[in-house]
Amino acid sequence: MENILDIDTVALDDEAGCIRAIDQTLLPGEIKVIEIREEEEMYDAIKRLVVRGAPAIGVFAAMGIYLLAKAMPQDSYEGFLKEYERASDHLNSSRPTAVNLSWALKRMRGVVEAHKAEPVPAIVSALHDEAVTIRNEDVAVCKGIGENGLTLLHEGDGILTHCNAGQLATVRYGTATAPMYLAHEKGMDIHVYCDETRPLLQGARLTAFELSSAGIDTTLQCDNMSASLMKAGKINIIFTGCDRVAANGDTANKIGTSLVAAAAHLYNVPMYICAPTSTIDMATPTGEDIPIEQRNPDEVTEMWYARRMAPENIHIYNPAFDVTDHELIAGIITEKGIAYPPYSKSLAEIMKK
Amino acid sequence: MENILDIDTVALDDEAGCIRAIDQTLLPGEIKVIEIREEEEMYDAIKRLVVRGAPAIGVFAAMGIYLLAKAMPQDSYEGFLKEYERASDHLNSSRPTAVNLSWALKRMRGVVEAHKAEPVPAIVSALHDEAVTIRNEDVAVCKGIGENGLTLLHEGDGILTHCNAGQLATVRYGTATAPMYLAHEKGMDIHVYCDETRPLLQGARLTAFELSSAGIDTTLQCDNMSASLMKAGKINIIFTGCDRVAANGDTANKIGTSLVAAAAHLYNVPMYICAPTSTIDMATPTGEDIPIEQRNPDEVTEMWYARRMAPENIHIYNPAFDVTDHELIAGIITEKGIAYPPYSKSLAEIMKK
Repeated sequence: MENILDIDTVALDDEAGCIRAIDQTLLPGEIKVIEIREEEEMYDAIKRLVVRGAPAIGVFAAMGIYLLAKAMPQDSYEGFLKEYERASDHLNSSRPTAVNLSWALKRMRGVVEAHKAEPVPAIVSALHDEAVTIRNEDVAVCKGIGENGLTLLHEGDGILTHCNAGQLATVRYGTATAPMYLAHEKGMDIHVYCDETRPLLQGARLTAFELSSAGIDTTLQCDNMSASLMKAGKINIIFTGCDRVAANGDTANKIGTSLVAAAAHLYNVPMYICAPTSTIDMATPTGEDIPIEQRNPDEVTEMWYARRMAPENIHIYNPAFDVTDHELIAGIITEKGIAYPPYSKSLAEIMKK
Repeated sequence: MENILDIDTVALDDEAGCIRAIDQTLLPGEIKVIEIREEEEMYDAIKRLVVRGAPAIGVFAAMGIYLLAKAMPQDSYEGFLKEYERASDHLNSSRPTAVNLSWALKRMRGVVEAHKAEPVPAIVSALHDEAVTIRNEDVAVCKGIGENGLTLLHEGDGILTHCNAGQLATVRYGTATAPMYLAHEKGMDIHVYCDETRPLLQGARLTAFELSSAGIDTTLQCDNMSASLMKAGKINIIFTGCDRVAANGDTANKIGTSLVAAAAHLYNVPMYICAPTSTIDMATPTGEDIPIEQRNPDEVTEMWYARRMAPENIHIYNPAFDVTDHELIAGIITEKGIAYPPYSKSLAEIMKK
């Protein structure tokens, strides 16, 4: 089986007119790269978590809107713009919580605006370049987060992570996993504990998979086991990703992150959020202002290919994310440095850099 | 389908020489009562969680050792005793954490001792009576816990529970569910949130099933979602069962209970342990002294009938229980009253009652 780490999570093939993406719904059983061409395929790929992870979704959306723009009628700017905005709005509606999706689409829209005096093919060409730039920046940003995060790690550390903020959530390296990959490269003795992350098991299926593929010493546990690990002194530090960081540091990330934070607070384990600045949304004052996606109850009650594991006729509570209060976060690691409390000040400073 | 609440979880059929037990591994899909006769079947039923829940295991073990004693050679006390102790030790080794198993077997052994001057058939007859007494006491104890717990509930309460401390964990009523059943009977408007309780999903498969069968308004969530519910103000009170309470109040219960407690502490939600006095072990000074069962990694990596959901060659952290520090527990509800901190004092007082 091909090593998952040798494949870009999402890659633009301009000549073939498609995005090649690892179908993450099939992992870890099957590594399959699929070709995505049509608008509905793109929408569906984000919605069904074929492509998931805030940074990867941003890169994917940039590549996607470029490919769609390339196929649009190019004889008038007005006709092109109308169709462009419709497609962009549609892609943007696929998932509400992660800010990277709208961030990337807004950046692409800015390129259209900046080149509006030029012929449409020139606009499309600029969109291509911007999508490639966003992709390349993602790789560099993750590397930067890795280097900053590495300064917090020590020989023998036990690191807890929740969900997948790994290579599979970005193009390369990951956010929360970037410091782990760098530490492992340097030969540091680290051990990573992965929450399985119900209901869709991204921790079990993706994080434990990619880390163990890299040769990192990895333990998988159910989501209810982290307090037990902390109490036993197995966890020295926590790294998670995020889908959106509000201006005050409140952080939306996969459901369960705030539960980990509550235990970390009790057991004095520092909890770090690994955040590309593209996920920091200064226009969102606090966590209260972040919309939380509610997902299909079937995700909790049905397991793939398995019989139903819960009774009929009960309610299901199934948000995709939760908000971790800034008071519970020891620092927010960005590619431009680590923000410490008070976040209203430190995040504003980082965003000006 | 028969209503699960109309069937005793475990029932002695002396004439047929068997215990009739609901096979809990098949729930909620199938309600099947199986007959258990042989020592290995008894051991296996506890080990595989066909019969589970600390109180139910105690009752089951009492019934089991009686049936085994009945079939033992009865011509000499010494021969009988040797065989009895071997069988009792074997049953006792099936699961280490719950104290009810050894508590019930110790109580049955006491009956043998008390009647040692009598002919063996008289001892066996006394064992029968003791098993029936233990069964009947379990029903009365659960009712007592229900009445005590009910005093803590209010109209409109949202109640969180973890794992199954329901009727299926006892003979009738349950421990943590007893106050809920009583409140529902009185027409109180309550809503129960059930943690699904990975890896074996007792919350999803058993608690959500029995509560919704009773017509109680029930929501099922993944284990990582409780902090989100607490923060949203949906949870006013937490009731869980326990497998062993140490003399200082430290409580061993299903893995994840201490994580719930950490979040409850942070969000000021009172966390109550529902504990028959048979689970309070004054010979165990603190939680540190409670052995924690480690279970098969397959439980985390494989789902019944489903494909593997985790990569090969990683470690699995899979304890069956954890210990909740007494500082995190608002009260311990027994059939003799509610113990409040300091537990060293209040539990000792309750045990003298």
